Amino acid sequence: MTSSLSPFFNAAGVAVIGASSNPQKLSYGILKNLINSTYKGAVYPVNPGSAEILGRRCYAHISEVPDPVDLAVIVVPAPVTPQTLEDCGKRGIKAAIIISGGFKEVGESGSDLEKECLEIARRYGMRLIGPNCVGTMCMRTGLNTTFIYGVPDTGGIGFLSQSGAVCGGVIDMVLGKKIGFSHFISMGNEADVTETDLIEYLGEDPSTRVIAAYVEQIRDGRRFLEVARKVSRVKPIVLLKAGRSGAGARAVSSHTGSLAGSYTAYQTAFKQAGVIEVQNWSELFDVAIAFDFQPIPAGRRAVIITNAGGPAAITSDALANNGLLLEDLEEATKVELRKHLNPAAQVSNPVDMLGGVDGPMYGMAVSTLMKDKNVDIILPILVPHALTNSVEVAQAIINASKTGSKPVLPVFMGDQSVAEARITLQGNRLPMYVYPETPGLVLRKMLTYAEWREQQMEGIQVLNDIRVEPVQKILDDAQKAGSLGEAQTRPLLEAYGIPVVKGGFAASASEAAHLFDEIGGPVVMKIVSPEILHKSDVGGIRLNLADRSAVMAEYDRLMNDIRRAKPDAHLEGVLIEKMAPRGQEVIIGMKRDAGFGPLLMFGLGGIYVELFKDVAFRIAPVSAVEAHQMIAETRAGKLLTGFRGSAKADLDAVVNVIQRLGRISLDFPQIEEIEVNPLLVYPEGQGALALDGRVILKK
Amino acid sequence: MTSSLSPFFNAAGVAVIGASSNPQKLSYGILKNLINSTYKGAVYPVNPGSAEILGRRCYAHISEVPDPVDLAVIVVPAPVTPQTLEDCGKRGIKAAIIISGGFKEVGESGSDLEKECLEIARRYGMRLIGPNCVGTMCMRTGLNTTFIYGVPDTGGIGFLSQSGAVCGGVIDMVLGKKIGFSHFISMGNEADVTETDLIEYLGEDPSTRVIAAYVEQIRDGRRFLEVARKVSRVKPIVLLKAGRSGAGARAVSSHTGSLAGSYTAYQTAFKQAGVIEVQNWSELFDVAIAFDFQPIPAGRRAVIITNAGGPAAITSDALANNGLLLEDLEEATKVELRKHLNPAAQVSNPVDMLGGVDGPMYGMAVSTLMKDKNVDIILPILVPHALTNSVEVAQAIINASKTGSKPVLPVFMGDQSVAEARITLQGNRLPMYVYPETPGLVLRKMLTYAEWREQQMEGIQVLNDIRVEPVQKILDDAQKAGSLGEAQTRPLLEAYGIPVVKGGFAASASEAAHLFDEIGGPVVMKIVSPEILHKSDVGGIRLNLADRSAVMAEYDRLMNDIRRAKPDAHLEGVLIEKMAPRGQEVIIGMKRDAGFGPLLMFGLGGIYVELFKDVAFRIAPVSAVEAHQMIAETRAGKLLTGFRGSAKADLDAVVNVIQRLGRISLDFPQIEEIEVNPLLVYPEGQGALALDGRVILKK
Repeated sequence: MTSSLSPFFNAAGVAVIGASSNPQKLSYGILKNLINSTYKGAVYPVNPGSAEILGRRCYAHISEVPDPVDLAVIVVPAPVTPQTLEDCGKRGIKAAIIISGGFKEVGESGSDLEKECLEIARRYGMRLIGPNCVGTMCMRTGLNTTFIYGVPDTGGIGFLSQSGAVCGGVIDMVLGKKIGFSHFISMGNEADVTETDLIEYLGEDPSTRVIAAYVEQIRDGRRFLEVARKVSRVKPIVLLKAGRSGAGARAVSSHTGSLAGSYTAYQTAFKQAGVIEVQNWSELFDVAIAFDFQPIPAGRRAVIITNAGGPAAITSDALANNGLLLEDLEEATKVELRKHLNPAAQVSNPVDMLGGVDGPMYGMAVSTLMKDKNVDIILPILVPHALTNSVEVAQAIINASKTGSKPVLPVFMGDQSVAEARITLQGNRLPMYVYPETPGLVLRKMLTYAEWREQQMEGIQVLNDIRVEPVQKILDDAQKAGSLGEAQTRPLLEAYGIPVVKGGFAASASEAAHLFDEIGGPVVMKIVSPEILHKSDVGGIRLNLADRSAVMAEYDRLMNDIRRAKPDAHLEGVLIEKMAPRGQEVIIGMKRDAGFGPLLMFGLGGIYVELFKDVAFRIAPVSAVEAHQMIAETRAGKLLTGFRGSAKADLDAVVNVIQRLGRISLDFPQIEEIEVNPLLVYPEGQGALALDGRVILKK
Repeated sequence: MTSSLSPFFNAAGVAVIGASSNPQKLSYGILKNLINSTYKGAVYPVNPGSAEILGRRCYAHISEVPDPVDLAVIVVPAPVTPQTLEDCGKRGIKAAIIISGGFKEVGESGSDLEKECLEIARRYGMRLIGPNCVGTMCMRTGLNTTFIYGVPDTGGIGFLSQSGAVCGGVIDMVLGKKIGFSHFISMGNEADVTETDLIEYLGEDPSTRVIAAYVEQIRDGRRFLEVARKVSRVKPIVLLKAGRSGAGARAVSSHTGSLAGSYTAYQTAFKQAGVIEVQNWSELFDVAIAFDFQPIPAGRRAVIITNAGGPAAITSDALANNGLLLEDLEEATKVELRKHLNPAAQVSNPVDMLGGVDGPMYGMAVSTLMKDKNVDIILPILVPHALTNSVEVAQAIINASKTGSKPVLPVFMGDQSVAEARITLQGNRLPMYVYPETPGLVLRKMLTYAEWREQQMEGIQVLNDIRVEPVQKILDDAQKAGSLGEAQTRPLLEAYGIPVVKGGFAASASEAAHLFDEIGGPVVMKIVSPEILHKSDVGGIRLNLADRSAVMAEYDRLMNDIRRAKPDAHLEGVLIEKMAPRGQEVIIGMKRDAGFGPLLMFGLGGIYVELFKDVAFRIAPVSAVEAHQMIAETRAGKLLTGFRGSAKADLDAVVNVIQRLGRISLDFPQIEEIEVNPLLVYPEGQGALALDGRVILKK
């Protein structure tokens, strides 16, 4: 691997700048960890105040350190860090890990220092991890730059954390359990190297089988989306995101705006990139070890083997709730099981072998089920008894698991009494869970990932009939107003090939009548005013005007009514639109996320969009497959596919509008939000028609 | 306490019948546990084959055992158990725990044996626990009749389990963690004493502060509801229910039937009885220790105190997702914290004291926040570092927690390194969690319970205008058909005071015209046929017939159309009903649960009930408060309370229909399902009107 990040984990020599001889200091801990590690490269303490630390010669200055040295671990006070980096650059250091705090996290002055560090690093072509981090571990080379007490086992999990503080706790939780890591990386403030860089690096690292990450914020959302999507095709990324509940204080300007919370863009990006999001720390490692140790299931049919009915019932519930199936076993399997088990045992699924079964019985059952064609996944459950040797059971399951290629996820319920069995199982690459409910969630995550991977992403389609110039003009004209009402949004949508109901703007009763003559009746009349966003809330919509005189009379009545209801609103006139035939109302909108870009929304229209929040999101651009998935994800989707005898709707027409709205959003970054609401969808082959729309521009 | 269950836990003397001298036998383990326990009463092994076991004189027969003896633990083969019980009865034994298996769980012959045991016990006035269980522990008297290895700490949790197999695993999980129990009871097959009996017993037991139960099935649902409701007023019941996913294989006969799954009645009963349902084993004890150790919060405002930002972010998310609040702290609090903490520390909520803080700082922060009027709950988080003494931090939090009465729930992230701190904390009645997300769920459960307790249950109202006789007659007539269509359901609803739209049945075009003359137009015409349940699905509804001749013509057209569409259906005629003014459509139904009785459902009407499953359930009878809560629980409830400018609907009219449907269901147990769909609800004061209904009778 020739990545510029390689020296962080494969350095030929490491200088610890600011190494202390005081065992109470973190820098002493770092040096001690480095020296005690299995790292084979050179290690140099640097500190003008000492001649020797921990039996190593200490250098007064980085310039004096001999070859080979390409990595610096910097533990000096923040204000002298820039000078230290400058010295590193001159010495030819390629990568630096800044452990010290006192940078962006403390406010403006620290922020300036951090920027200075970054500029120096760029000047010398050095890469930086940190500042304000607890260092890194590479299990393959043994290179450990942390001051954490304890080193985890070696394995396939590449771990990244934006919080340094949790790292010690995480190590403590995994120690002695044979949960194995390839890398363990605290990223600190991410002045230079970001979570996305490291995901890309670990994606190419052959010792990493699964990436597990704790993330609080992703700054370059669009690059993350691209990199994560690429990496997910090769190996799973399991991610715990903090800050999910941050309520946006933003005023509500459209339905899409009000429904797309600050966390929606993250969630949507994770889904599109195949990233497996988990909700808490226990899930993070429960899922990561399953991916690390076991193959991905070929299907969703699980079998439970147990010595106790109670936990099996809980496992069954968890499986059902997560979309897994407990199917009937093959007849041959039942015969074979019956041959060996207690006559009172249950040989259907779940297989209840009853209490008192031993290792050989577990082994027999697992091997037998490996051959059953109705089984994709094997879940052996053990509740230890005084007379059961749980290590013997573990060993039997391990041996039997090697007779086939189906994933095996054992549950051994307990704590101290199954600690040794856990080491045996996980040391042999079988994940052990202590709660019977855990495999349900773990398997769902594995299957969701497998589906994502299988799903062939088709390219983004080329859209025809796009006219950029009229939109540019409309947006330029509206820049000051900050938003577009229905009247201006209509031509904008038409320019991008979105079908809009026939109609136009009228500033007087006679203009309205003239329009009526043009488009034919019956028509609907809608108030046009920059102060009125939700027209129906103020009675600003009049339906079913069937002749010329009715249109003229209604114009005056409408103006009078609204003037009374909203005396401060400036009333520009009305829209006259042909009454559209009834269709299924849906809403399609976009809200721009600062990090990830245009976030497209699809949902059921009418008041139901707010009542049920039945909406789906994707980040633009979306392929036709993704747009169809959006529709299928909502309950509204069912209405469009012929629910309870209704006609199947023109889904392709909806997909077309979703894609075109994505295209407008990508072409015009000044559009903050855009929404078609409602879009009327007609039966298959009969298209769809936008009835109303609005645009909010960037301020 | 004078309960007949008392001897199980407070026996004066215990005989172990079938006690073995072979250490490989369970009965040896039971005797050994009993002798090694702190139990002060007499212990007698009974076995004709031994003279002495474990240094105790062994008796050949229970009749020879001297006084005092009131409890027998029976570990003999199933076939000789009835005779053994008979002997116990004669000896004056008051309670027996049957450990042996081989009863109902093995099939019919075992079932007969179990019934025989119960009859003998009833004859002698003996109570039975088991058979097929692992015994009981009472921590106050030390009486331990299990063969489980290990005894948990003493505390306030009364634990019940319908699975004996899990008991050993549970003990192993709690050992050495200062999770304390008052009782630990394996209930086995529940031939006599049930989960409800034991909940009632523990409800009155002063050493039990919280009941934790693992339940697979509740046979007498209505008694459970009554007992649990009574006990919940005094102490919390935390319950894990297995078998939640059991899909009913029953054919769909009404919306209510299809929406009320087999688990719905349990869930509804738990809610109404104040039972705190949890989803898995970890939640069961996470929640139970919080109730055991800490007071219930006075409100939902929490403060986080941490030495690390990462876990605090996860805790914040979990709090927000569970309805907790992180409010601003009082100015005085901030000033006080600022005085003591690192200048870079954050003194707003979450309080981030930064890494390196020690015990005294945690103590200072907790004491300071005890005084803050904006804080109801204190959550100290510690991520241990090499330089932190987590036991010292634990002790400081314990001392500070005593300066006030707010609940304190510490999170110490880690495993081995916080094991000693856990013993310190939990030994001093502070629950310790290792994952930062846990307090969110725990606190929601505590607050939900507190709300349930505060809520004054008003009595069930007396309903007027109820006429039983006409309903009795309709049901008698329909017995053979097994169900009532709209035409017969109309008069049934009317008899119970439920307002139904004007109309009637017509068997010919001229009868239809006659009805039209009576009720006035416009009317709707609906097909009447026992084979057609969903009339609109087959085009069996014709709207807006405004005059006599239209009614007559449409009658013939309808008959012809339906005959073509459903040639096998027997068409009885039509219903002619006055077109009702538009209102909000809702659905109110009842499905009878075999255990819990009539399960009432309220939901949004139209196709949305199936699309969104936006429904709420309660078991009849319901108070007006409960009926209002049903409405409020659904999103449809928002539509009725004036969503987006619509008029507030007549909620009392809806509540009235819910209560009356409950009353019909209680009065006529032969009604299996009944449904009003739709009920049109009008603005406040204008009532509601049933448009359609159906009844399914018990087969």
